[in-house]
Amino acid sequence: MEIDELNPDVLAVKPSALRVFDHEISGDPQMVKLTLGEPDFNVPEHIKKAAIASINADQSHYPYYWGIQELRDAAAKYYCEKFGYQYSADQIVCTVGATEGLSATFKTLFKPGDGVLIPMPAYPVYKAMASLNQLVPIMVDTTDTDCVLTPQQVTAAIAAHPDVTIKGVVITDPSNPTGAVYSEEQLAALVPVFRDNQIWIISDEIYGELTYGVSHYSLSKWLPEQTIIINGLSKSHAMTGWRIGFVFGPTGVIDQIAKAHQFEVTTPTSIVQYAAVEALTHGQNDAAAMRKIYQQRRDYLTQSLDRIGMTYVAPKGAFYIFTKIPEQCGQDSFTFAQHLAKTYHVGLMPGTPFGDPQALRISYASSDENLHAAIEALTKELTRVGALTK
Amino acid sequence: MEIDELNPDVLAVKPSALRVFDHEISGDPQMVKLTLGEPDFNVPEHIKKAAIASINADQSHYPYYWGIQELRDAAAKYYCEKFGYQYSADQIVCTVGATEGLSATFKTLFKPGDGVLIPMPAYPVYKAMASLNQLVPIMVDTTDTDCVLTPQQVTAAIAAHPDVTIKGVVITDPSNPTGAVYSEEQLAALVPVFRDNQIWIISDEIYGELTYGVSHYSLSKWLPEQTIIINGLSKSHAMTGWRIGFVFGPTGVIDQIAKAHQFEVTTPTSIVQYAAVEALTHGQNDAAAMRKIYQQRRDYLTQSLDRIGMTYVAPKGAFYIFTKIPEQCGQDSFTFAQHLAKTYHVGLMPGTPFGDPQALRISYASSDENLHAAIEALTKELTRVGALTK
Repeated sequence: MEIDELNPDVLAVKPSALRVFDHEISGDPQMVKLTLGEPDFNVPEHIKKAAIASINADQSHYPYYWGIQELRDAAAKYYCEKFGYQYSADQIVCTVGATEGLSATFKTLFKPGDGVLIPMPAYPVYKAMASLNQLVPIMVDTTDTDCVLTPQQVTAAIAAHPDVTIKGVVITDPSNPTGAVYSEEQLAALVPVFRDNQIWIISDEIYGELTYGVSHYSLSKWLPEQTIIINGLSKSHAMTGWRIGFVFGPTGVIDQIAKAHQFEVTTPTSIVQYAAVEALTHGQNDAAAMRKIYQQRRDYLTQSLDRIGMTYVAPKGAFYIFTKIPEQCGQDSFTFAQHLAKTYHVGLMPGTPFGDPQALRISYASSDENLHAAIEALTKELTRVGALTK
Repeated sequence: MEIDELNPDVLAVKPSALRVFDHEISGDPQMVKLTLGEPDFNVPEHIKKAAIASINADQSHYPYYWGIQELRDAAAKYYCEKFGYQYSADQIVCTVGATEGLSATFKTLFKPGDGVLIPMPAYPVYKAMASLNQLVPIMVDTTDTDCVLTPQQVTAAIAAHPDVTIKGVVITDPSNPTGAVYSEEQLAALVPVFRDNQIWIISDEIYGELTYGVSHYSLSKWLPEQTIIINGLSKSHAMTGWRIGFVFGPTGVIDQIAKAHQFEVTTPTSIVQYAAVEALTHGQNDAAAMRKIYQQRRDYLTQSLDRIGMTYVAPKGAFYIFTKIPEQCGQDSFTFAQHLAKTYHVGLMPGTPFGDPQALRISYASSDENLHAAIEALTKELTRVGALTK
């Protein structure tokens, strides 16, 4: 049986470089990992108790494929109060984390050959999903505009691809990997170009509760009829490994996404659905304590990077800093990150998968001690190569 | 935004009629449901304890996307001892139940336009997955051979479709919906035709532990290099809603399936992965007690159906009986099942989605009391229409 006879779209896609790199360096027990985007906090106790109660109550049977009614009711209420989402329970599908929500959404919205705009730098999974669905990913560089997409960039991308029907755009707000956060004005400015060109908006708001000194807005406020929101509890409630997410979308489209979802997974884990009801009904403030700590860490990192002369995109949300590798380090991001891992036992994520081969992503969803170790390693390395400018 | 501009493959597929029918009748609190294929047993206590221990140990972070090493090690050992599978841990991907394993496998093995043989009657999700991946599902009627596929039927199907490259076949053994179980000889007889025609075998063995008086064999014994096994703990350990499955496949192919899996879900729920380790290391006999009860129920049902003159495929495994609706009932299976639900508050699954509009699937993963209610309803209805032949 010939491997090269398999689905060429699957053959062509690479496994997530992020997870592969993280796995590679995990063999070193000394490794300080600031790689994956997951909170170092544990799931809040009241949510753990709800999960245990669900196990003890033997709620182990198939939930309805959209997700249990209580959870969709709770999600409608919670996200309306948090961010003003205007979606009823029957416009919400519960998914296996944000990933599965994205997967079902990419599969549903587009036809092979359709173009999808991906503002760069970006979480690399979007491009992979576009490719797996035979779409045309169109990467739009936003580094000149503080990693915030502008209407001019959209217009220019459309003009530059006259042969592609551009049907979608991915907005990640707050951004992974840069921590950029769109202001209300910046989102409002995008509305006409998305409306006029009838572009579906995949609005990945998974970091929505993690903003520092600024508010989170959702494009669904202006364009509910063409916005699909991806959200979930992985970041806001430190539930990454538990895998629960939500897709919000207008009637008609959400029903189609629900079908694609059903044939991917049937439904998310029952235990986690019941636990998520608790998170959404009594965990409105769970993120607040984490947010405070993240903000302190962000401040420590930006001050430290300033001190050693490393530049970065101003981070206002999520828990990442995307920083430029000094030229004197003269290496691509993978080589440099591997060198840091080998020499200093510090794991920072190479920028290449996000679209910048001369950058690193530092996750500050990690302890102060780990952040100190990372800064110490960078300081030593920059000193070694003569790149310490201050 | 036009709904008819969405992905036509998603638009065309129908949501699982099984789940929709089950959901429809679930509004009646009196309803006796023998519809969905899920054990009425609870998750065994030692597995629940392991899940709770995992929660308390805060094992809530991202597991590696193939699944945690301990689980893949445990799966390799368990299934080798149970059924003789010869797969190492690095040939196993942990999935969100069997559904996600099937989804990733369909996505990976085939190219748009490839043909896939589906012996009928069949679990309707296979056809839906084939269509979602732009494959050509070729339904092969096996009712004349006790719902067991024969080499002659494969050869005939290939000859009947000269324009289609037939690249795969789905073998469900034990079968949903018929309970048919392949003997060692019947599987061995299929080996040459699958080998000579280089046909990938998707071997759905999710009911492998539930056979009554006969043994379960796996085609991977003869054709490991072209067999992908789908299995999991939903049926053997009554863990349907917990969503944990496994895909076993040869090196090279399994790596590709792992990628497709990653971009669907990232990974199954961490809690359930740790609980599954317990199931596979200390739950070797968990299915035995359930199997004994299922067998008693099967015997009750076959005797009862014999008494009222309803015919069926001889069930040797799984927990279903696929029985013909008597002609005097003069209705298609949906109308008949809806009538039974409305009149007698008994939910039996229409046969149409499985490929037989004149059949019903009775799940005996339900209490004796419920089975009695079902037989009573059928007896009354057959009496009413004058179809009671004995």
